[in-house]
Amino acid sequence: MKLKKYEKNPIIAPNPANAWENLVTCNPGVIYDDGRFYMLYRAAGDDKEHVIRLGLAVSENGFDFRRVGDSPVFGPSADGPDGGCVEDPRIVKFDNEFYITYAYRAHAPGQYWTFAHDVVRLPRCGAYAPAAMAQNLGNTGLAVTTDFRNFHRLGRLTSPVLDDRDVILFPEKIGGKFAMMHRPKQFVGEHYGVKYPSIWLKFSDDLLAWEDKPSHLLIAGREGTWEEKIGGSTPPILTEAGWLTLYHGVADGGTAEYRVGALLLDRENPLRVLARTPEPILEPEFFYETEGFYSHCVFPTGNVVVDGVLYVYYGGADKYVGVATCRLEELLNYLTEKCRCE
Amino acid sequence: MKLKKYEKNPIIAPNPANAWENLVTCNPGVIYDDGRFYMLYRAAGDDKEHVIRLGLAVSENGFDFRRVGDSPVFGPSADGPDGGCVEDPRIVKFDNEFYITYAYRAHAPGQYWTFAHDVVRLPRCGAYAPAAMAQNLGNTGLAVTTDFRNFHRLGRLTSPVLDDRDVILFPEKIGGKFAMMHRPKQFVGEHYGVKYPSIWLKFSDDLLAWEDKPSHLLIAGREGTWEEKIGGSTPPILTEAGWLTLYHGVADGGTAEYRVGALLLDRENPLRVLARTPEPILEPEFFYETEGFYSHCVFPTGNVVVDGVLYVYYGGADKYVGVATCRLEELLNYLTEKCRCE
Repeated sequence: MKLKKYEKNPIIAPNPANAWENLVTCNPGVIYDDGRFYMLYRAAGDDKEHVIRLGLAVSENGFDFRRVGDSPVFGPSADGPDGGCVEDPRIVKFDNEFYITYAYRAHAPGQYWTFAHDVVRLPRCGAYAPAAMAQNLGNTGLAVTTDFRNFHRLGRLTSPVLDDRDVILFPEKIGGKFAMMHRPKQFVGEHYGVKYPSIWLKFSDDLLAWEDKPSHLLIAGREGTWEEKIGGSTPPILTEAGWLTLYHGVADGGTAEYRVGALLLDRENPLRVLARTPEPILEPEFFYETEGFYSHCVFPTGNVVVDGVLYVYYGGADKYVGVATCRLEELLNYLTEKCRCE
Repeated sequence: MKLKKYEKNPIIAPNPANAWENLVTCNPGVIYDDGRFYMLYRAAGDDKEHVIRLGLAVSENGFDFRRVGDSPVFGPSADGPDGGCVEDPRIVKFDNEFYITYAYRAHAPGQYWTFAHDVVRLPRCGAYAPAAMAQNLGNTGLAVTTDFRNFHRLGRLTSPVLDDRDVILFPEKIGGKFAMMHRPKQFVGEHYGVKYPSIWLKFSDDLLAWEDKPSHLLIAGREGTWEEKIGGSTPPILTEAGWLTLYHGVADGGTAEYRVGALLLDRENPLRVLARTPEPILEPEFFYETEGFYSHCVFPTGNVVVDGVLYVYYGGADKYVGVATCRLEELLNYLTEKCRCE
């Protein structure tokens, strides 16, 4: 089972007309609301600091997106914790408000593809500066909007001493609690029972209050496979069969190809994994997935179901946006019939 | 033992020339550095929202302060968690950086003196909005500066589901850990062992990471006295006798007069209270303490020791700034000789 890539991919590519997005457009959060697909895509220009912002594009059919204006709609704060970059949005809707989880750093990361693996630019600061600043850790914040033009930052969701990204909210409460996936890089080793960064799950009564809540291991990577290091990708979709969610798996402990798998989680207890794809359902093949700032990478961050079709939006090679589709039913059947756990 | 009030108090009063500070100037954070006293004072104009910002004043002698410019130096963020007001700064120095804890709200509180006790303006928001937003809770953030002109917000220090203010950092590590006092309003009742909001203490390895750390009760109020509800006031001062710190006590469960007491805490284990003043060492008497937006209130937020003199800076009636002094030795002798605990 593979998702079907759109023949006209990429659907968003760097825009030479705008300095803030002339180098990179990737990893989009997407939501369908009131007949429209709204896409917040990660964008950067060819500046040395590699400041990262979010642009907005909309579509009526899920394939043809048009940019809304010539400016980013959401960027680093002027003097706040997320002052360096804002990345990889995931969008869910509660009541009439869209909540966006996004990774950020205190300082722009620099052109990371020119550095050694996982290295980022560090700021100058005092000897007692918090780790988030001194090490320029990747944290995750929450923002809220009703119109995708005006955003209000609500603050940090993750621990300030962890590098913790790929934070994804479930779009409904489960058993009266909010739920979220996260992927702390430091949660590895004997104490954590995993060898590489993995997907963890938390529950809370409040959309902003997660830091003091226990993390439960959802799934770990599989040694020697395409998915050694893993992380959550798209907001879970509630189906009759359970919560459907996509995740990314990276070979060689997190240093090689990025591919995509799917999970089916129990509706009432999402820690119970009902099904998991043994082989990737999406992997790098085409130029927009193999040639960029992280080559050989597909990285979904948004998914939408309209008229029984699952639309999966993903970054390609940290440079482009692509879309791939399947009948939702087909993927669910594949998961329940061929990929059952136990 | 009483602190001696400066005869020319108030030393800062509302400034009719500036709209942002024409109504209120109070509760100042003060630090002495390189021969100068730096004061960040809380300021507000006569706008209905009651937006609260910080102004800067400096002094060479600790009594005569001059404002630096006609603009606030630190205000609510444009679209961040502290978008409503920033209040009651406390300043400590680590290495070459000044760290400022400050209370904030998502929305400006409104003219609270015209409302019922402890009521604040609430924003319009969705049914799932976090408590910090929906209830417009008072949280505490951390900011850093090296010059008192440029500030970088590092984020929230307190739980987003608590009203938690009067957060004060110890200016040195203790036993290898950072330490802070805080005053969560909700920590009352049988489970907490206290009837009114009290002063709690936490330890951490990181200046930004407090939310998942246990809170230890430092001191509680005393029923039927001037100090039923209490909270920390000034950054602790390390002396041979122990940590000297001032706190405020409020009568009638937190609804009446604000007065000031002093504590002496063990150098190695600040949870061990060595001495506590039975009677206030500062209380409202003069017009600048009895007539304002919270009348009958003295509220210290800064203290400095220069040449053996303790300078205590305080808000008067939520409207003015005053200073009171004593010989440091005199207060320490009083504490160790007359106010010993046990």
